[in-house]
Amino acid sequence: MALICVFNGPNLNMLGTREPEIYGRETLKDVETLCADKCRTLGHDMRFTQSNSEGDLVTWIQEARGKADGIVINPAAYTHTSVAIRDALAAFGGPFVEIHISNVHARESFRHKSYLSDIASAVICGCGIAGYGYAIDTVSRLIAKG
Amino acid sequence: MALICVFNGPNLNMLGTREPEIYGRETLKDVETLCADKCRTLGHDMRFTQSNSEGDLVTWIQEARGKADGIVINPAAYTHTSVAIRDALAAFGGPFVEIHISNVHARESFRHKSYLSDIASAVICGCGIAGYGYAIDTVSRLIAKG
Amino acid sequence: MALICVFNGPNLNMLGTREPEIYGRETLKDVETLCADKCRTLGHDMRFTQSNSEGDLVTWIQEARGKADGIVINPAAYTHTSVAIRDALAAFGGPFVEIHISNVHARESFRHKSYLSDIASAVICGCGIAGYGYAIDTVSRLIAKG
Amino acid sequence: MALICVFNGPNLNMLGTREPEIYGRETLKDVETLCADKCRTLGHDMRFTQSNSEGDLVTWIQEARGKADGIVINPAAYTHTSVAIRDALAAFGGPFVEIHISNVHARESFRHKSYLSDIASAVICGCGIAGYGYAIDTVSRLIAKG
Amino acid sequence: MALICVFNGPNLNMLGTREPEIYGRETLKDVETLCADKCRTLGHDMRFTQSNSEGDLVTWIQEARGKADGIVINPAAYTHTSVAIRDALAAFGGPFVEIHISNVHARESFRHKSYLSDIASAVICGCGIAGYGYAIDTVSRLIAKG
Amino acid sequence: MALICVFNGPNLNMLGTREPEIYGRETLKDVETLCADKCRTLGHDMRFTQSNSEGDLVTWIQEARGKADGIVINPAAYTHTSVAIRDALAAFGGPFVEIHISNVHARESFRHKSYLSDIASAVICGCGIAGYGYAIDTVSRLIAKG
Amino acid sequence: MALICVFNGPNLNMLGTREPEIYGRETLKDVETLCADKCRTLGHDMRFTQSNSEGDLVTWIQEARGKADGIVINPAAYTHTSVAIRDALAAFGGPFVEIHISNVHARESFRHKSYLSDIASAVICGCGIAGYGYAIDTVSRLIAKG
Amino acid sequence: MALICVFNGPNLNMLGTREPEIYGRETLKDVETLCADKCRTLGHDMRFTQSNSEGDLVTWIQEARGKADGIVINPAAYTHTSVAIRDALAAFGGPFVEIHISNVHARESFRHKSYLSDIASAVICGCGIAGYGYAIDTVSRLIAKG
Amino acid sequence: MALICVFNGPNLNMLGTREPEIYGRETLKDVETLCADKCRTLGHDMRFTQSNSEGDLVTWIQEARGKADGIVINPAAYTHTSVAIRDALAAFGGPFVEIHISNVHARESFRHKSYLSDIASAVICGCGIAGYGYAIDTVSRLIAKG
Amino acid sequence: MALICVFNGPNLNMLGTREPEIYGRETLKDVETLCADKCRTLGHDMRFTQSNSEGDLVTWIQEARGKADGIVINPAAYTHTSVAIRDALAAFGGPFVEIHISNVHARESFRHKSYLSDIASAVICGCGIAGYGYAIDTVSRLIAKG
Amino acid sequence: MALICVFNGPNLNMLGTREPEIYGRETLKDVETLCADKCRTLGHDMRFTQSNSEGDLVTWIQEARGKADGIVINPAAYTHTSVAIRDALAAFGGPFVEIHISNVHARESFRHKSYLSDIASAVICGCGIAGYGYAIDTVSRLIAKG
Amino acid sequence: MALICVFNGPNLNMLGTREPEIYGRETLKDVETLCADKCRTLGHDMRFTQSNSEGDLVTWIQEARGKADGIVINPAAYTHTSVAIRDALAAFGGPFVEIHISNVHARESFRHKSYLSDIASAVICGCGIAGYGYAIDTVSRLIAKG
Repeated sequence: MALICVFNGPNLNMLGTREPEIYGRETLKDVETLCADKCRTLGHDMRFTQSNSEGDLVTWIQEARGKADGIVINPAAYTHTSVAIRDALAAFGGPFVEIHISNVHARESFRHKSYLSDIASAVICGCGIAGYGYAIDTVSRLIAKG
Repeated sequence: MALICVFNGPNLNMLGTREPEIYGRETLKDVETLCADKCRTLGHDMRFTQSNSEGDLVTWIQEARGKADGIVINPAAYTHTSVAIRDALAAFGGPFVEIHISNVHARESFRHKSYLSDIASAVICGCGIAGYGYAIDTVSRLIAKG
Repeated sequence: MALICVFNGPNLNMLGTREPEIYGRETLKDVETLCADKCRTLGHDMRFTQSNSEGDLVTWIQEARGKADGIVINPAAYTHTSVAIRDALAAFGGPFVEIHISNVHARESFRHKSYLSDIASAVICGCGIAGYGYAIDTVSRLIAKG
Repeated sequence: MALICVFNGPNLNMLGTREPEIYGRETLKDVETLCADKCRTLGHDMRFTQSNSEGDLVTWIQEARGKADGIVINPAAYTHTSVAIRDALAAFGGPFVEIHISNVHARESFRHKSYLSDIASAVICGCGIAGYGYAIDTVSRLIAKG
Repeated sequence: MALICVFNGPNLNMLGTREPEIYGRETLKDVETLCADKCRTLGHDMRFTQSNSEGDLVTWIQEARGKADGIVINPAAYTHTSVAIRDALAAFGGPFVEIHISNVHARESFRHKSYLSDIASAVICGCGIAGYGYAIDTVSRLIAKG
Repeated sequence: MALICVFNGPNLNMLGTREPEIYGRETLKDVETLCADKCRTLGHDMRFTQSNSEGDLVTWIQEARGKADGIVINPAAYTHTSVAIRDALAAFGGPFVEIHISNVHARESFRHKSYLSDIASAVICGCGIAGYGYAIDTVSRLIAKG
Repeated sequence: MALICVFNGPNLNMLGTREPEIYGRETLKDVETLCADKCRTLGHDMRFTQSNSEGDLVTWIQEARGKADGIVINPAAYTHTSVAIRDALAAFGGPFVEIHISNVHARESFRHKSYLSDIASAVICGCGIAGYGYAIDTVSRLIAKG
Repeated sequence: MALICVFNGPNLNMLGTREPEIYGRETLKDVETLCADKCRTLGHDMRFTQSNSEGDLVTWIQEARGKADGIVINPAAYTHTSVAIRDALAAFGGPFVEIHISNVHARESFRHKSYLSDIASAVICGCGIAGYGYAIDTVSRLIAKG
Repeated sequence: MALICVFNGPNLNMLGTREPEIYGRETLKDVETLCADKCRTLGHDMRFTQSNSEGDLVTWIQEARGKADGIVINPAAYTHTSVAIRDALAAFGGPFVEIHISNVHARESFRHKSYLSDIASAVICGCGIAGYGYAIDTVSRLIAKG
Repeated sequence: MALICVFNGPNLNMLGTREPEIYGRETLKDVETLCADKCRTLGHDMRFTQSNSEGDLVTWIQEARGKADGIVINPAAYTHTSVAIRDALAAFGGPFVEIHISNVHARESFRHKSYLSDIASAVICGCGIAGYGYAIDTVSRLIAKG
Repeated sequence: MALICVFNGPNLNMLGTREPEIYGRETLKDVETLCADKCRTLGHDMRFTQSNSEGDLVTWIQEARGKADGIVINPAAYTHTSVAIRDALAAFGGPFVEIHISNVHARESFRHKSYLSDIASAVICGCGIAGYGYAIDTVSRLIAKG
Repeated sequence: MALICVFNGPNLNMLGTREPEIYGRETLKDVETLCADKCRTLGHDMRFTQSNSEGDLVTWIQEARGKADGIVINPAAYTHTSVAIRDALAAFGGPFVEIHISNVHARESFRHKSYLSDIASAVICGCGIAGYGYAIDTVSRLIAKG
């Protein structure tokens, strides 16, 4: 049994109400339920959190070090601007998967650049909230591989 | 009667003491008084806050959703680096005006790029703290237009 | 009592009929009335002109030198292409404010570059024709400051 | 019966004498005759003018609004530098075709950029003066389509 | 019951032997089995093909039009160079998902550009061959949504 | 009597069904008829072909060498990516005209670059299928000039 | 005896009053006297004009064709923005020298680009108004060489 | 006796455990001891803090204003992304030195850009934790110089 | 005894007739003879082919895997556009040499970029068809080195 | 009486024989004579040297410091690549003029960049060897101005 | 006991007299004394040289190979232009530290690029001549580490 | 019998000891022997030199003018930075071949730019020291062709 952390970046607490034509109508609570179910099925523990603060995300990733076996992260807007989160993830050691609910490639050009993708194990975008499930699945398989 | 939020970004709490040759000698307290007077004249309520933290600003903008009718924001340094604030403002729904006390175009080239201007209703810069008054005026008119 | 010149660039004579969803339905005559009222209130004289010709605008700015105390200019398309107007304004000596009716930052990328903004006192865009009033206000204050 | 305006930009009055190895030996008078014949055949009226002044071209395009049904324009050097002509054409409303006698793509790289092409109905270059005929033909068909 | 096409680009026939440290040891036959199983489970028919020829891929996508309900495509090297495949997919009409076995973002910079991502429904990379399953899952859900 | 080849690139076989709001409702068969009529009128023979394969187009252009007198080519997506077709056309020797049905300048920025335009005799775009007629006309005149 | 035209661009009529720390205190009248003296000494006729209008400069250059033997031009701000003046000069046929009173290389980066320099015979900048004399000298020598 | 502040940015609390092949095995506690010893030797007071939050660093720098005589800052990841920290340091007034434990120039290209270096007094990188000592030394000397 | 494959890209079948001032008058048959002689001298078998199709070249390189010991490739136009050929060569495993008959550096700028050079063993250009001999020589030596 | 140094960079010793169609048929000896005559007329002493070595030029400029009153330099190829010569000239203190015999703007794009122009007093190019005379004249006038 | 070479690039022989507001008033002799003292304290031998010639610096670095244990280099202007010095240092084998007296990041943008920093052990700038001491200290520690 | 000069740039005197994994273990003496043998076989005289100084190389190339029939040059680091060597080679008149022992395309990006390649007859890289032989062969053939 492994521990998988699912971290969510800024504005994801608004999910379901914010621009539903882009992000859908499901809430972050729905995402949490989906992730919890998926982890339970795979026999893993889960930690699920969200913050609007870059510093919080950095700290949570640091805390995951040595405790968690893998990370799923939807860094939202910090994808494009945060070297600090990149550095924390690089120091984490275990596998992590970057997930975006919408297809960032179909949006503004500044969303095409990610500070995380080149050190991520995998990147999933545009699959809606189901992408969280795929990400957990992928992290789980990578943990198993060691 | 509408509610207008006036949000101020990092280092604006230093106004009046920091680089007065650029920003003038008036303090943030003076700005607040000016804004309060302007809102009172126009018959609006006002919320006026400042933070050095990107996360605080994101959260305040989220909280404005459904409560406030318009936003005036001086994002200061986060103008040039924060996609998170952009995303929060895009989700706000009502009109917002971006205001800078100094003329950012006459300064370093990295200050010429704004992550907010293309989704703002209006952008005012270089008018000193009087610009806050123009911004409230503009937001007020846009609220009236519906 | 000061003299403030309000100069308008190409196609602004079409205001009210040209792309009203961008520029609104008010005509240049309405702008002139607004400016005249504002100047009268502030106790200033005003000169208000429009031309489609870059050379005319250059010449008017030259003529303002030594006669006018401040300039409000909506350079329209010449914002993005005219070094000649920039040079004339740089030689003017007094304060000038650049004003755009629409939010140029929300439009084509070639409209994001201005040859004037870095030498302007202030830049106002997206406030509709009310922006002319703010510009006159700002120029007036700068004249008063000396 | 429609009215088609054929506007010609700077230096086209020199046609036939200026760099004939690029532009051929026919004069602007020959072009006018070709266009007049073509319009007569199609049953249209024509206005045919040339100017070295950007402002004149802007004004003529403004005057075409509400009077002419379509425009054929050879903007010559202003193709690459005039946002003012673009703005006037965008406000025109009817179809317009951009025409160049020589193949601009085979010349200096600054001639590869056009401020007009993305809002034109069609772009024809390198067909010699016969291109004017194709342009009138195309505008005529677009007028017919409504 | 829907028909899902799974198209594979150049060099994917070498899967399992070519650079296994990047692409893993599973063969394209293994991928086909995985996809067939997934489609059977979801109640869909599947067409699974591979080609080294850009033209073949264009033609197969054209043929899918009106017959298939969704496409999963691993365009391999053509991701970065083929406008023709983009045009064919744009004309397809139904949903399609772009899938890469390895994390292209962690490789050469020319692999960071995709001609397909901005018109894809979703993009999955770095999940190994399991990504094909996620892609079929996503296409299936999009078909169901209509 | 001359031989004119009319070559059509990828996805043009889908004409009339693919994105008709961009390309119109006429089919490639209609284009062929138009071209055949035009050639007949001008007293020329015609060869008319289409392929999704870059290699086929290269080979056809090679075969035209010494047999055909001129080429009209709608390279479609290969316009933007094929140096091989450019090289074949450069070796052809006779005049060739590049034609696009839609106005490529009004579309994605990667469509603004052509590997062929600078060596073409003429470039016609946005004139609909009538552009094929103008292209044949132009090639015919260039053949006559020798 | 030859005819040399000396053309001056926008804002040069302000010479002596405009930014004297950059351009010096001599007026355009002083420049004219200097040029007239120089031409008289060399035995040439001179035409000396100034305009703020791009179109005027284009027309004067056209008129010089066939009448004048050489041109000295201080294109001022149009140096950096006018393809029309370039085209007129390219059509002129005789030698022309580009002259700037100040050292444009020591100023804003947009002044480093000239649309004329690559087709000029010579470029002189930063020599003050004496540069006009050197330019006339150079044109005179080139006329003599034929 | 002066007060020197030593501020440390995100992830530096992980020093000694995070990527020791890059950052060495010494901890932030070791750095603090080194700095305290150095300050004691030079006869200065010291404040030593670390945070993962950009806002905290901004606030600490503001608080240093008027209290501290100099700053040594290892901004870590915020070096490359924070205009807010730059603005706070610009307002600080006293000397500050930017220090990096590793040689940032030998790492990813996004680490080559610093928002602070051009306003710093000195920049030291790649000297390991000994660099902190050099930085305190330098700040101390600059304080002495006044 | 080793097997060396010599692959030739698009338009090389036209050698000797196509732009002889660039490529010389020798035909691809002459190149084949030269290569065959060279291989015979060195005691190697040779496979020599040409295609206009990117897919063919990819497939041939795949087939060389496990059969051939080294590759000499003149990718012609595909040098600059084909990631697929790069991927196939990267998977080949043995040494390969990129050869161009003309000096590509002296031609259009788009010919300066090669998708193959950074993974090639050696690059030879501008030596005429003798370059094939040098390439075979180099591959042969690399095979011998193991 | 002042001392003016005339320094010449690499390959200028080949003047008259190297590419005479660009540089003319006069030799460096002729240039020296021209300069000596000019200096004698103006009542100045002259030092005239040439070197192919960047280091020599740096050393000569250093030696000019405190001895010479002005410098005329034709840096030839080092114009485009030498920061060392720039640094030496910046330290010189007196006026210097940059001179090129040919019009560098009409040549390869790498010749358009100069490391010296922005700190030079004046830049003269394309006037042939007469440009040396103008440069001495200009330096002489600047020395006189103090 | 180790041997440390201290190499100084062009114009550093002018130290103390050249732009003292940037480089201070201490001479290169002072720097040598500082370095000699530092080396003596640490128990090392020192070689200290300066040249304006790129070739000299290359040769000295080559000679250091096998004799010296570490290098401190102030490459001055060659920092930004010399690949030859980079190559020599890369071949040196031992540790080297790049030192600049002034803060190069606060100067012209061409000084922000270094050909050496990414292969240096450490980079120190803006610490005045004390930076030489820190550099020797750092090299000494790296030698000790082996 | 012709004279062929073989010139070698900076650091090549270190061949065999410097980074042997890139440049191999053969020394410059071995290269000289290889070249001498090759020239003797072809019946040519040879001059073979090396220098770390850009100025020396320029001077040697100048001296070759009128004496030597062809040049083989390995410009090493000066490939990427020397316009002076380019200018000297352009003035040489006879054929020259650029040779690099390693494959520069597989190394740092600044090594991909050559100031010489576009005016060279041929470029050979990555063939080890055997490349010198191919270069002499090529120069010899070009001399024979006249």
